Amino acid sequence: MSDGEAFDFQLEYIISVIRDTGAKVVGLQFPEGFKRRSPGIASRIEDETEVSVFISGNPCFGACDLDVALINDVDILFHFGHAHLDDNKLSQKVYFIETRSAVDVKDVVGLAASRLEGKRIGLITTVQHVHKLGDAVKILEKHGKECVICSGDSKIAYPGQVLGCNFSSARNADCDEYLFIGSGQFHPLGVSLAMKKRVLIADPFVNELREADYSKVLRQRSAVIAKSLDAEIFGIIVSSKPGQERMELAKELKQMAKEHGKDAHIFTMDLVTPDQLLQFKVDAFVNTACPRLAIDEVGRFHAPMLTPLEFEIVLGEREWEDLYFDEITGE
Amino acid sequence: MSDGEAFDFQLEYIISVIRDTGAKVVGLQFPEGFKRRSPGIASRIEDETEVSVFISGNPCFGACDLDVALINDVDILFHFGHAHLDDNKLSQKVYFIETRSAVDVKDVVGLAASRLEGKRIGLITTVQHVHKLGDAVKILEKHGKECVICSGDSKIAYPGQVLGCNFSSARNADCDEYLFIGSGQFHPLGVSLAMKKRVLIADPFVNELREADYSKVLRQRSAVIAKSLDAEIFGIIVSSKPGQERMELAKELKQMAKEHGKDAHIFTMDLVTPDQLLQFKVDAFVNTACPRLAIDEVGRFHAPMLTPLEFEIVLGEREWEDLYFDEITGE
Repeated sequence: MSDGEAFDFQLEYIISVIRDTGAKVVGLQFPEGFKRRSPGIASRIEDETEVSVFISGNPCFGACDLDVALINDVDILFHFGHAHLDDNKLSQKVYFIETRSAVDVKDVVGLAASRLEGKRIGLITTVQHVHKLGDAVKILEKHGKECVICSGDSKIAYPGQVLGCNFSSARNADCDEYLFIGSGQFHPLGVSLAMKKRVLIADPFVNELREADYSKVLRQRSAVIAKSLDAEIFGIIVSSKPGQERMELAKELKQMAKEHGKDAHIFTMDLVTPDQLLQFKVDAFVNTACPRLAIDEVGRFHAPMLTPLEFEIVLGEREWEDLYFDEITGE
Repeated sequence: MSDGEAFDFQLEYIISVIRDTGAKVVGLQFPEGFKRRSPGIASRIEDETEVSVFISGNPCFGACDLDVALINDVDILFHFGHAHLDDNKLSQKVYFIETRSAVDVKDVVGLAASRLEGKRIGLITTVQHVHKLGDAVKILEKHGKECVICSGDSKIAYPGQVLGCNFSSARNADCDEYLFIGSGQFHPLGVSLAMKKRVLIADPFVNELREADYSKVLRQRSAVIAKSLDAEIFGIIVSSKPGQERMELAKELKQMAKEHGKDAHIFTMDLVTPDQLLQFKVDAFVNTACPRLAIDEVGRFHAPMLTPLEFEIVLGEREWEDLYFDEITGE
């Protein structure tokens, strides 16, 4: 499957925005999976307009991760692959090109209908498929299901949309179980752990169903917490990315550490990688940057990497049963 | 050798600056080799003052590489391991702690005296040893040599100091040959290639002499140029780091490419790594960021990585004989 066919880069729209705004310098920012398309898209834009195009070469993992330096250098930034984050002041210069997927979801939702056990189904998905939720509703209603699609908090652009760091649209849904449409495990795992309800995953790319099972990730998290129980020196990580910066939380955690007789240092950084933390000799890290990091990269850091909730468990300020995925919530 | 003994972190000075300025929030930024000292230094500062300390977790390779995001979050940034870059507007909030080396240079300079062939010796070094040039002069004069120690352009803080990207203090020295005091090969190689004069390296850490020989690196550079001769699509890299940003140069190179019928795209980024460029399918890169990158990381990128001068050779705008290391010059 060529991503050129499967995803919509909205080139005509981009060119019309450039013409309408009279922009002279334009930035393009792509998540990793789309970066290889960037020279072709830049050429097309430069051929059809008079603008200079700059392409962001920095890693990009979400709408939380706008290229701040590039925004300062351009009239307009086109940010691909993610939906608008409502509360971001930087985003006035940014056009979010959501690169929605053309893949059909009807078949896999049809398969899912017979595997859903409850009556009221909470529908959730990523922005790539959010325009297909209507198709899903029609099919599920034919099978006698009631569909619940809810708005989330201010971080969520569309009803039913979930982010890797925000499950508020699922939390708002009064339902018996969830159907997640999309590939990947992270979002459905987070929802199932947060809501303690069954989440069925309908992957439209391979037409397969899976059930979200958080038992393995919960075992991993328990091991990370256990390894941190004797830690004396903590490194609290704060991201400088506009949508990931939680300095106030970091200061609270540092104060909490102090009250428990522990040492804590605040490390500020842009990209958080195992390599980059290697030089910092602490007993455990607490990550206030992207909530996925501690979970996706488990075991790759030289010291245990806790989420803020897990740090509270380590300090005895939270019960082990109250362990969920970390979220960055809005209003 | 413990770096704690060998390098001066000026803790008393730092604490007095904090007291004198009444700073409430202080940032610390270290190059890679000193990062493991950061928790200890942060604790000492927090114990003796009332400030909150934030430690930069980002990679840092020079005074060109100030942590801009951290500067915005603090009253004062202490930047370790590099000398002041005179032309940097950001540096008003920055105190440069040069971490000078306590290592003695007299023995190795004494050894060098008998190996120096010329009469007039240009003395060059890095900021870690710049306070020892007086010792070197005394010894060389005893051996009947004349010493030349020159100021550089505005990027250079001290007479005789060289950077990996600026050899102007060497260029200003009217001498028969050079003596470089320090470890590492890059600076003396750059000077020898730029000046086409002998550079003797006196390494005070191991008390050894070596001669700078640029023949290997010149062969490598020739191979990179040769591999780029058929390239049709170029990726021109621009750093967003305050002391490395050369967007105007990048635009000129893009225009030059266009006049030669070649395609070129401008990629802006913070940290330039082989991994991060992997997704960009171009035939060759041209790096306007840190001049060391193309040379130190030769062979590690998926496409040839040219310096701007080498790109001019590829396009036929410069002769092969006029190949030097790239420099970022001041006024």
